[in-house]
Amino acid sequence: MGRPSQNLPDGLAEMDSRRAESFSDGVFAVAITVLVFNLLPIADETRGANSLTASALGGHWPAYLAYVVSFLTIGIMWLNHHTMLSQVTRVDRTVLVLNLFLLMGVVAIPFPTALVADHLHESGSGRVAAVTYGLVMIAISIGYSITWVYIAAHQQALGSRRRVHTPRLSTVRFTAGNAGYVAGTGIAFRWPVAALIIFGLLAVYYLFEHLPDPGETDPEPGSGPDR
Amino acid sequence: MGRPSQNLPDGLAEMDSRRAESFSDGVFAVAITVLVFNLLPIADETRGANSLTASALGGHWPAYLAYVVSFLTIGIMWLNHHTMLSQVTRVDRTVLVLNLFLLMGVVAIPFPTALVADHLHESGSGRVAAVTYGLVMIAISIGYSITWVYIAAHQQALGSRRRVHTPRLSTVRFTAGNAGYVAGTGIAFRWPVAALIIFGLLAVYYLFEHLPDPGETDPEPGSGPDR
Amino acid sequence: MGRPSQNLPDGLAEMDSRRAESFSDGVFAVAITVLVFNLLPIADETRGANSLTASALGGHWPAYLAYVVSFLTIGIMWLNHHTMLSQVTRVDRTVLVLNLFLLMGVVAIPFPTALVADHLHESGSGRVAAVTYGLVMIAISIGYSITWVYIAAHQQALGSRRRVHTPRLSTVRFTAGNAGYVAGTGIAFRWPVAALIIFGLLAVYYLFEHLPDPGETDPEPGSGPDR
Amino acid sequence: MGRPSQNLPDGLAEMDSRRAESFSDGVFAVAITVLVFNLLPIADETRGANSLTASALGGHWPAYLAYVVSFLTIGIMWLNHHTMLSQVTRVDRTVLVLNLFLLMGVVAIPFPTALVADHLHESGSGRVAAVTYGLVMIAISIGYSITWVYIAAHQQALGSRRRVHTPRLSTVRFTAGNAGYVAGTGIAFRWPVAALIIFGLLAVYYLFEHLPDPGETDPEPGSGPDR
Repeated sequence: MGRPSQNLPDGLAEMDSRRAESFSDGVFAVAITVLVFNLLPIADETRGANSLTASALGGHWPAYLAYVVSFLTIGIMWLNHHTMLSQVTRVDRTVLVLNLFLLMGVVAIPFPTALVADHLHESGSGRVAAVTYGLVMIAISIGYSITWVYIAAHQQALGSRRRVHTPRLSTVRFTAGNAGYVAGTGIAFRWPVAALIIFGLLAVYYLFEHLPDPGETDPEPGSGPDR
Repeated sequence: MGRPSQNLPDGLAEMDSRRAESFSDGVFAVAITVLVFNLLPIADETRGANSLTASALGGHWPAYLAYVVSFLTIGIMWLNHHTMLSQVTRVDRTVLVLNLFLLMGVVAIPFPTALVADHLHESGSGRVAAVTYGLVMIAISIGYSITWVYIAAHQQALGSRRRVHTPRLSTVRFTAGNAGYVAGTGIAFRWPVAALIIFGLLAVYYLFEHLPDPGETDPEPGSGPDR
Repeated sequence: MGRPSQNLPDGLAEMDSRRAESFSDGVFAVAITVLVFNLLPIADETRGANSLTASALGGHWPAYLAYVVSFLTIGIMWLNHHTMLSQVTRVDRTVLVLNLFLLMGVVAIPFPTALVADHLHESGSGRVAAVTYGLVMIAISIGYSITWVYIAAHQQALGSRRRVHTPRLSTVRFTAGNAGYVAGTGIAFRWPVAALIIFGLLAVYYLFEHLPDPGETDPEPGSGPDR
Repeated sequence: MGRPSQNLPDGLAEMDSRRAESFSDGVFAVAITVLVFNLLPIADETRGANSLTASALGGHWPAYLAYVVSFLTIGIMWLNHHTMLSQVTRVDRTVLVLNLFLLMGVVAIPFPTALVADHLHESGSGRVAAVTYGLVMIAISIGYSITWVYIAAHQQALGSRRRVHTPRLSTVRFTAGNAGYVAGTGIAFRWPVAALIIFGLLAVYYLFEHLPDPGETDPEPGSGPDR
């Protein structure tokens, strides 16, 4: 009885998926909070004889926009990451490596966010910033697709919690997401502000559209239906 | 047997509430620690030939006051967040989205804190800083109210751990909290220091007054009353 | 049977001690990592035409000393915090509030650390920095004593995991620790470097001397002796 | 039955290894995320009239290289740390102290990373930066070896999850790793960029080569084969 994983021989290079998730959750939590560091310098810049006014604060709108877009984006990436890993009970070395590269992208997000926060309102620099932002998103998006395809292909070996019935649908979804980021990046070459708003809307869209969830995401041993 | 959630059909868009809590806890822990970054520059500013004196340190009282007020505020928000999510065993997509917006507000708190730390002792800028601080608090406060109302209205579907007997009382409490922040923000237009002290007293008040707790906050499977 | 806590009526203002620990652990983990931010500016300061030399790096010894001392100090505080909370199975509102004030002190540690890192090698400022460091340590030390006394006095109500046989011994230990910090702070008025070394030795001492541990720190439900 | 640890008398100075892991995981998660702070200043430096260009961004290649190398390095250190602690069910005071020193090294990594990010492209300073980087790696590497040797020697007393069949092999592996860092540091005296690439390749190598894993990393009580 017990967990399906117990029916499989002990793998040398495997890890309980919950533990990989727990470390990843920590990284996501820190990365999403680091975004506020793009707002903190505003307090410094407004230093001086009463230079902090409502309009001085308002002039930093690119920083607020970048904060909101990146916060929602990392938030949705966390949700997708959770859904992806919760499909299986164990992760092998390949998933761990793929996961590490994914996290490397997620942790880097505050950097293009800072570029956008500092430069979006400038004509030339704004484009470079928004395009860089889009390229980072595309890279992460591709990383998710690869990881998802790998997990779907090895779900049996990784102790799938329930058959993923719609791998094709998921593939479509991921492709659509990637296409959205590619389109946004293309637009960023001309209209950087519009591009950032598109990136934000993509995040909002994914907040309501998502990967198939396993019915129970964190089953404890012995809490199965046969209990 | 087992958890109440198991009597419900598998929901596609649901997550075990403990996991959402765990991620949120991480965000709260980082956000509350980020507050110290408003103190670190004081070490830099006092650099130079023996310019670090007790009175130079004391001159930064707005930074210390802002640190204490925001620390207590995020602390009490963590307690309320925990109490809110522990009412239920699962969260649906709507709660996850509401939660993400709540966290977006909490993570932003170090920013108005920095504004207050840098400007509270200035006459005009101090008001802008304190009003901004109050507005962020009001926004988060409203976010809590909405999330609480939603959870209370859907407690059956979300696998309530115990009937919330006092939704009306809770609503009153939240309204009172919101009113406190609105009053404080109004006062900030004239007396920014007084406003900050009020925000601190609100946090202290809530440290001792709080949402109804479920009796057992983290029941493991099989630890139910039927054991 | 199950956990002792289940024999008690549902308390409105209580929380499973493991969850309070988990949030606190997060705060400790972030606070201890924030210490590296006192080292990062060294890379900036050595910018310029080949100004990064071994001796330029060595000149920042107060920053390295402060890093090591504060790292060990927060580390030992984490261990003591864990031991303290693991004596009981639940925490009441008072413990939560005391805990929040404790964490407020721990999170602030990078600030006096920054003062010491920037000023220890200066004659006058070094004393102010080291004294401030000592005062923060004394404040946290007193906070620990109060929390410990409260928990020891209410261990029955908080679901003690095992009788604390040596409350008097613990009190002696805490008093000794406080005395150590008081002595160090006194010395800081004259010999700031010596004071910092004393604070470091205090941490090393406590690494090997510690509170009475409960035999099993994280018992899962059902893993009790009656199993 | 239950866990093997329950057959041993209650140790005063012991802690469930999972809890030590959980705190360590938090520290690793924050430390790995702190690496992005070496990228954030790039946004500031490119401020000014449209000075953010693709080539200006590209000019900061040492920062990106340092980010990738350190990210992979901390990632692999996390994996090794997990594998090391998961060999046993409890940790004694010595392991806790060794662990604290290990973490002190890991948390410091963003500092030599910053040195490399800022100076690698300079002729003289680049060498100092890369050598410092290597020395920190050697120190951490030695720390891992000591901890591993201690755990392997005391696996019986620490409640080993399964006999470590290959202590000699592991020793060889660790020695090889240390040798790699020593060689890289030697090379850094002449070719700092090559040294950093070597440090990166060492991390990639270890991503696929690793310590013997216990078959099941996070067994819950009662989930053993006798269930």
